[in-house]
Amino acid sequence: MYSGMKEVVAGIDIGGTNTVFGLVDKAGNILAENNLKTAAFPRIEDFVTNLTAAIAKLKEGQANLKLTGIGVGAPNANYHKGTIELAPNLAWKGIVPLAEYIRKKIDVPVAVTNDANAAAMGEMIFGGAKKMKNFIVLTLGTGLGSGIVINGEVVYGHTGFAGELGHTIIVPGGRDCGCGRKGCYETYASASGLVRTVLYMLSELRDESSLRDIPPSELTAKKIGEAAVKNDPIAIEAMDYTAEMIAFGIVNAIGFSSPEAIFLFGGLAQAGEILFAPVREYVDQNVMPIFKGTYKILPSGVSESNAAVLGAAALAWNELKR
Amino acid sequence: MYSGMKEVVAGIDIGGTNTVFGLVDKAGNILAENNLKTAAFPRIEDFVTNLTAAIAKLKEGQANLKLTGIGVGAPNANYHKGTIELAPNLAWKGIVPLAEYIRKKIDVPVAVTNDANAAAMGEMIFGGAKKMKNFIVLTLGTGLGSGIVINGEVVYGHTGFAGELGHTIIVPGGRDCGCGRKGCYETYASASGLVRTVLYMLSELRDESSLRDIPPSELTAKKIGEAAVKNDPIAIEAMDYTAEMIAFGIVNAIGFSSPEAIFLFGGLAQAGEILFAPVREYVDQNVMPIFKGTYKILPSGVSESNAAVLGAAALAWNELKR
Repeated sequence: MYSGMKEVVAGIDIGGTNTVFGLVDKAGNILAENNLKTAAFPRIEDFVTNLTAAIAKLKEGQANLKLTGIGVGAPNANYHKGTIELAPNLAWKGIVPLAEYIRKKIDVPVAVTNDANAAAMGEMIFGGAKKMKNFIVLTLGTGLGSGIVINGEVVYGHTGFAGELGHTIIVPGGRDCGCGRKGCYETYASASGLVRTVLYMLSELRDESSLRDIPPSELTAKKIGEAAVKNDPIAIEAMDYTAEMIAFGIVNAIGFSSPEAIFLFGGLAQAGEILFAPVREYVDQNVMPIFKGTYKILPSGVSESNAAVLGAAALAWNELKR
Repeated sequence: MYSGMKEVVAGIDIGGTNTVFGLVDKAGNILAENNLKTAAFPRIEDFVTNLTAAIAKLKEGQANLKLTGIGVGAPNANYHKGTIELAPNLAWKGIVPLAEYIRKKIDVPVAVTNDANAAAMGEMIFGGAKKMKNFIVLTLGTGLGSGIVINGEVVYGHTGFAGELGHTIIVPGGRDCGCGRKGCYETYASASGLVRTVLYMLSELRDESSLRDIPPSELTAKKIGEAAVKNDPIAIEAMDYTAEMIAFGIVNAIGFSSPEAIFLFGGLAQAGEILFAPVREYVDQNVMPIFKGTYKILPSGVSESNAAVLGAAALAWNELKR
């Protein structure tokens, strides 16, 4: 490579609605980015053709950039196989060999993983976990995703699908979950879990609350957080219970892999100290004595707006250094 | 090393009552073994002096054996530090630098881990997990120990104490646990958990049962297993509930690390198919759909009587090949 050439990777985050992508250098600078509507491409082949063309376009007029790898975060992604498998929120059915399709258009190494694992890579390469070998990222969005790093490597397991803490059962016989089972961690510890908890509190308690004036279909974690800041008793109670349930899953995860830190990320984590303070307190109260004081519970060190692209890019950079 | 010389390691298993140890070759043959009473040595220095002398004695008259390493399985062992820390069932208080003490007497590499992690090493080097990179061993004894292997390595975590599945909470607010908390996995999924379940069933149900004639202090998993074989309704119900609770923890562990196999080991696992069949059924019923059919639930491939020494020896062999 002649002098003046700069290596970049493409980070791609595929969501049910939008796909965002960007060119990212080794230091985590996003040099160019764009997006396209995932749902506009019912055929995967058309999606890949348009996506790879758009990535090529990002490089236009920047002749000094050399694309050396591609990382993709996508729902139901299988890292081992480079596939997306049976993703309920995507139009592409069955098993989609995404890495292979992309490589046919742009001949560089392509790695694929789910968005929570990508977030963990982002934390490790560009964020708050740069020097950590053992940590966990929980993405508290509509659901709960998790990326687990042990001995410096993301845990993919035998199948490539490991790290599904959102679907570990924390309340036997508890709330219905989208996975078809009951009591999964994400039915309590997520933005939608918080909304469900408010509805339950409204049924159980007689306190006055501004949340009684909002149709349940319009309730959001953001509105509940705002009400909590204004001392709405239902919102406060619901936030506290949600913190307790988030802590519960963290306590068990600490028993499993004894991480140095647990990073909370995603919409619900934006609530800040009103959530972090009680989560820390419940974890400290309930963790096994031998683990007391051995872990930190931290906000993500990657900014929310860049995290999807940076996480996918981090995956690519990590592959290249193997 | 001159020809005819045979490399061996010493495997040492320290229990609250007995310490067993042996010389083990690379193929997993125990060439000599012996034991001493742990409790006879209230001072750790005396214990180490006697233990290392006894190991030297095992080699007497076998001049062709070359001792190349030592592995130790012990309660509350910290692999990272080579220590035993705050072990409630041992006379040695505080933090005991066991590996260092042994190395002063016998100058070879010494590795220390807890007995469940040693069992996992034994399974990987000498047992049923020889070709596996991701598996879990559950030792169902008085308590529940676990050794977790991910990407071919035992999970020690940031602290060295990871893999405490026995103290993940599966029933919030449930049974009192020796760790000071409530509802831990081992209070249900262990030999003592089975005994507690029988007592609960005797309180709840009105069925006649031979177990009503045994003082609770004399009830054992073995007696309950024998009663179940004779169709005692309480024993059968308790065994089924225990299988369901064992399965519950396995379901969540699969969500975490997606292992290829889960090995059940220890006294309770000796019950055989009367336990394995319902455990498999409950896991299959309750596991997240994406993991269905991706795991095996197996008896240990290491014989119970040799497992403690072989597991500790496997730890030593594994260190030597690093």
